[in-house]
Amino acid sequence: MPTPNAPAEEDAPGATRAPTENDWGAWPISLDEIRAARERIRPFLHTTPLRRYPELDATVGPGIAVLVKHENHQPTGSFKVRNGLAALTALDRAARARGVVGATRGNHGQGLAFAGSLLGIPVTICVPLGNNPEKNAAMRAMGATVIEHGRDYDEAVEVANRLVRERGMVLVHSTLNRDVLAGAATMALEIVEQEPALDAAVVAVGGGSHAVGLLTVFRALAPRVRVYAVQASGAAASYASWRAGHPVSVSAARTFADGIATRNAYDATFPTLREGLADFITVDDAAIADAIRLFLRTTHNLVEGAGAAGLAGVLALRDRLAGQRVAVIVTGGNLDLATLRQVVNGEL
Amino acid sequence: MPTPNAPAEEDAPGATRAPTENDWGAWPISLDEIRAARERIRPFLHTTPLRRYPELDATVGPGIAVLVKHENHQPTGSFKVRNGLAALTALDRAARARGVVGATRGNHGQGLAFAGSLLGIPVTICVPLGNNPEKNAAMRAMGATVIEHGRDYDEAVEVANRLVRERGMVLVHSTLNRDVLAGAATMALEIVEQEPALDAAVVAVGGGSHAVGLLTVFRALAPRVRVYAVQASGAAASYASWRAGHPVSVSAARTFADGIATRNAYDATFPTLREGLADFITVDDAAIADAIRLFLRTTHNLVEGAGAAGLAGVLALRDRLAGQRVAVIVTGGNLDLATLRQVVNGEL
Repeated sequence: MPTPNAPAEEDAPGATRAPTENDWGAWPISLDEIRAARERIRPFLHTTPLRRYPELDATVGPGIAVLVKHENHQPTGSFKVRNGLAALTALDRAARARGVVGATRGNHGQGLAFAGSLLGIPVTICVPLGNNPEKNAAMRAMGATVIEHGRDYDEAVEVANRLVRERGMVLVHSTLNRDVLAGAATMALEIVEQEPALDAAVVAVGGGSHAVGLLTVFRALAPRVRVYAVQASGAAASYASWRAGHPVSVSAARTFADGIATRNAYDATFPTLREGLADFITVDDAAIADAIRLFLRTTHNLVEGAGAAGLAGVLALRDRLAGQRVAVIVTGGNLDLATLRQVVNGEL
Repeated sequence: MPTPNAPAEEDAPGATRAPTENDWGAWPISLDEIRAARERIRPFLHTTPLRRYPELDATVGPGIAVLVKHENHQPTGSFKVRNGLAALTALDRAARARGVVGATRGNHGQGLAFAGSLLGIPVTICVPLGNNPEKNAAMRAMGATVIEHGRDYDEAVEVANRLVRERGMVLVHSTLNRDVLAGAATMALEIVEQEPALDAAVVAVGGGSHAVGLLTVFRALAPRVRVYAVQASGAAASYASWRAGHPVSVSAARTFADGIATRNAYDATFPTLREGLADFITVDDAAIADAIRLFLRTTHNLVEGAGAAGLAGVLALRDRLAGQRVAVIVTGGNLDLATLRQVVNGEL
């Protein structure tokens, strides 16, 4: 088994031991691990609301009750703060002293930086060149060291792996880490308590950390809930993998939904997605922008692209979801001003 | 004393008994009433976060710790849900059966509609012609009857008073109601618990309900906190009253911050403002739009004009607030898409 804090890393096999499916298994985390993560992060975070909006329901139709999980209300504006806190609270003193490093387009890094600032752990974040400057600034403002290098998320991961090799830092991968997965899964514990009569959930997938969390918790506590995954059509590695039956990479990740823009699927999450999902679809950037506008108009919440992909998925699946109670996870709200301007001007 | 649920109404003296300063006194509600309101609304609402954002602090300078009270995270997107629930939970069975009526530009009506839907009380909302269609739709979606009549908020109040006379409904005025004031004040109880070392608070004033709440609670529990009021320069009745030393009306209310667009000051709140405020300033619409953009960039929260006026006030007062811990109340987040478009395009 990989240790919790030095997870294997498919993208950079030289860095750490590459996982096999056997390492992770179809269900890599247990309900006990998820509950333990919840106890560790409880002192730092509140339960986020799961809310209905009558106007949203009326727009979505036909008889669908849309239950919005407001991870955008988290202190860093995304669910990734659960992951960062779950991972860093699990570190022993020696690991904390070495400091942690992560690669991110933003939200994972903000989660790590927030956790590091609360726990007094040095945090280094690797982002690709041209990464959203608002997100870089937010991480730096929380005390993290931000290194801008590489063309995209996957190249930033390679930089992080180099820091692990050369400086002995502890890698906290945004997906390939059991404590990260357990942290993301804590939102599912909340959803099950908040809405016992749930029929379905529609979740955006990047690396798949929160999809695995939902699937694991629903399987144990609410097995009737069907989980549908959504990915941006311009960055559809997990979707292509699910259709192919094995993890595949794609050559580019083109979507403004940067929170789910990755070229790779992961051994750590793929078996769970393959076994647990009711279906997997893609939506294009225009549909994601429509969903952001719908959230703005009916809930007055600012939602980022990755956070709106779930609602875009509900709209795409609406005939199949008719009459059901459906959770959508607003994974984050960290939409930058330039992109927001494009969205409200109808340029996306 | 006016009864809690048929408050006197300066705007329409024929409707209900007009209050005198003696009726309300300088401190119209007590800490006990506020605590009682908190117990009544506790089953329905969570404590809202009071948060710092390092980037916001860095932008505001000089050494000011800005503590953001997130009333935009309330289920109706504004603090007015406290008011609506506090007022409607206080009604006896006979009053509930008669149904309630209120006048609003939006947030008070959404608070009433939300409370009515939870408690099974019929709610009628009077809005001026041309009122924000998103807010009207939100109230209707929550089951309220919406009547569009009159040129502005104050004329909508007259319509509400007519319904009280002609149909026997129970008026819940957005300010002139002791339970409304107590409901708004519950946020101040939370702030005092969340930040015992607070130095100051900067609050937007329309009718003044939440300013009175803050002043009352701070006076009792944190008397060292200095409270500064802010009003939009295009709708500055309370400001003009404070400067004049007695309540005055203004001929127009011109600001895109519709939540604080009123032509009148109130006998019910004026004495408290006069006695309690450290100072009262105005900010123009451009400064409010700047504050909305600053919230978007540094907190990724959508904030409406009235909700951003407090931050605009902090920026205007920044030299006097240097080095202090200052609360700003994001009273609401219900910014409509058309106005948001103007704000992000720099047209406001």
